[in-house]
Amino acid sequence: MTTVESPVAFNSALLVDSSLFLKAMVQQIRANDPYGTFRHWADELLLKPYVLSKTQKREISVEGEVDPITQSRIMAFYRAIAYCIEAETGQLSQVVIDLSHEGFGWVLIFSGRLILVSKTLRDAQRFGFDSLEKLSAEGEKLAAKGIDLARQYPTVCDL
Amino acid sequence: MTTVESPVAFNSALLVDSSLFLKAMVQQIRANDPYGTFRHWADELLLKPYVLSKTQKREISVEGEVDPITQSRIMAFYRAIAYCIEAETGQLSQVVIDLSHEGFGWVLIFSGRLILVSKTLRDAQRFGFDSLEKLSAEGEKLAAKGIDLARQYPTVCDL
Repeated sequence: MTTVESPVAFNSALLVDSSLFLKAMVQQIRANDPYGTFRHWADELLLKPYVLSKTQKREISVEGEVDPITQSRIMAFYRAIAYCIEAETGQLSQVVIDLSHEGFGWVLIFSGRLILVSKTLRDAQRFGFDSLEKLSAEGEKLAAKGIDLARQYPTVCDL
Repeated sequence: MTTVESPVAFNSALLVDSSLFLKAMVQQIRANDPYGTFRHWADELLLKPYVLSKTQKREISVEGEVDPITQSRIMAFYRAIAYCIEAETGQLSQVVIDLSHEGFGWVLIFSGRLILVSKTLRDAQRFGFDSLEKLSAEGEKLAAKGIDLARQYPTVCDL
């Protein structure tokens, strides 16, 4: 199976370069790297923990708290969406994550009094995507919806 | 000083009876009492922990996590506001609390895509009010603002 590794890595690098959303995510992850641990890591390596197969997900226990690393991973995903919305609409936005101790909860991205992205989380311990393509597509979809809303109700954003 | 105790308690009872908001809070606190601990407690006794003098506040450490009892106290306050908004406008609303480990954070009450109440929390370990009157006034003020917003932007609530 290892022979497939290198073309996959190559494709991942190409994908990260071509996806504005994945670039925004990498930017968020690097912004939260005060000790420069990731300085020499390739972008696609930073995104790798976001890709989880069904089997890998099943192996992660949903008992107990969501660990801080997974929490900051979730945060980077939604901050990247917030960044994309901001870049497109000029509306500053906030990300709020309310997670219970069991991995259930809410993520909201809002600007003024308008909620641009509203998602419930379930089994947040297993936060991940089938592939980088899916990660990119999901992020872009949520950002696009948020941009639409911000354009539709600019007065609510300015409250 | 103990001679003043009983008129104060008497006034508190009167106040709780006359304030719709305080009644809603008592209702929220009793709703979170699965073992019936508070069954025989007077309403004003349930609200007593919300009243903190400046000195009492100063005595509470802001180091470390907000303890679960204070968290549920904050939750009951904002749930009561959500309840008042719902009762007045018919819009179902959610309360989301995002608290950092240092007692900083956000509280949002929202309905659909509209944020009805948006508050930042600071030193949440010291959550409290000078008096029951102040508690009631603050809750009513936030609820009134939320009701106004819900009436102004009903379409955003329905998104």
